[in-house]
Amino acid sequence: MKKALVILSGGMDSTTLLYQVRKDGYETRAVSFDYGQKHKKELKAAALTCEHLKIPHRTISLSVLNELAPSALTRDEWDIPEGHYAGENMKQTVVPNRNMVMLSLATAYAIGKKVKYLFYGVHSGDHAIYPDCRPAFYSYMQDAIMRADWHQVLLKAPFIHLDKGDIAVLGKKLSVDYSKTWTCYQGKEKACGKCGSCVERLEAFEKAEIKDPLEYE
Amino acid sequence: MKKALVILSGGMDSTTLLYQVRKDGYETRAVSFDYGQKHKKELKAAALTCEHLKIPHRTISLSVLNELAPSALTRDEWDIPEGHYAGENMKQTVVPNRNMVMLSLATAYAIGKKVKYLFYGVHSGDHAIYPDCRPAFYSYMQDAIMRADWHQVLLKAPFIHLDKGDIAVLGKKLSVDYSKTWTCYQGKEKACGKCGSCVERLEAFEKAEIKDPLEYE
Repeated sequence: MKKALVILSGGMDSTTLLYQVRKDGYETRAVSFDYGQKHKKELKAAALTCEHLKIPHRTISLSVLNELAPSALTRDEWDIPEGHYAGENMKQTVVPNRNMVMLSLATAYAIGKKVKYLFYGVHSGDHAIYPDCRPAFYSYMQDAIMRADWHQVLLKAPFIHLDKGDIAVLGKKLSVDYSKTWTCYQGKEKACGKCGSCVERLEAFEKAEIKDPLEYE
Repeated sequence: MKKALVILSGGMDSTTLLYQVRKDGYETRAVSFDYGQKHKKELKAAALTCEHLKIPHRTISLSVLNELAPSALTRDEWDIPEGHYAGENMKQTVVPNRNMVMLSLATAYAIGKKVKYLFYGVHSGDHAIYPDCRPAFYSYMQDAIMRADWHQVLLKAPFIHLDKGDIAVLGKKLSVDYSKTWTCYQGKEKACGKCGSCVERLEAFEKAEIKDPLEYE
């Protein structure tokens, strides 16, 4: 049986991807990364989804990344910027090279477990703001990853040309339980509805014509 | 002034590279990785060299990599294989995807410090045994790294077509203090002289016609 490892943040994109990979018949496991994000609720959401789908799940600590390169997502003294995602101020939410670090550790894990397919839920809505979410970056990472070890790992990013709305439409078909996902960059009881992440999520649910099961402030 | 970050293991290759980069006039800093290696002495050697050259030095813990993917370099219950480096049994010394993980964290660090040039001392002697030491792997990593952030980092691997003997010849010209380096995979008081690393080192010193200042068993 084809083995797959899905990088699962606990947000709606990677959760939808997990449902899709599982439906496609892979023997699936998931890995999440704790990089000191304020929105720890996404890690709990990831664990809940894996429990629900009976998928083995591992969370890896990346606290070192926060020490090396602080960002507004991890520092208490920095405020999360509000407003639409494309804004210049959203650059503050970047944890430098987070994606390459996560991909490299997920690849090490995949090699250890003899998993061939590594799935990552990056999508086109992120391209404008994050350089390491663009197709060229993934194309080169794919080439490097497949040359990293005798056991070949293939990086798959099937959502790279979809936007978050397309993903919500797909999730509707897959009956994804979006109550077990978390998107807001503020780690509060209810989602703020104001940060770039929330704004995008709400637009996506609108496009898919489904109701977001999360509560908003 | 051009800023450079050198990935410094504490072995003879990266130490020689550090001397070269410093001589070339870069504002230089160094980073080392503690991945639970038995040969911790290489980390002490790295610190001694940086102290000697007055270069800022940071050691980053990578214990997570050992948890994810064990190898003979990090597990007490596994013996370090003896004999020449090219042997099939040396595959046991591979920590899966170690190079990509180190490069991705070093890149994050370089971005945080606004460093443009990231130097890595990989050389041709490693190509046969380690897939992630081959030129194609580095070419793709270079392309991915320069696309990882708004601040562009350039990966440089100037020794990739040299062998360890060539590096020792270069080190002789640079007056590298090889007493402040460590190569043996066994972490004992004296170098074993038998593991693949020691065998290669001794051959390199022979080629350069200099005496290795380390003591051997």
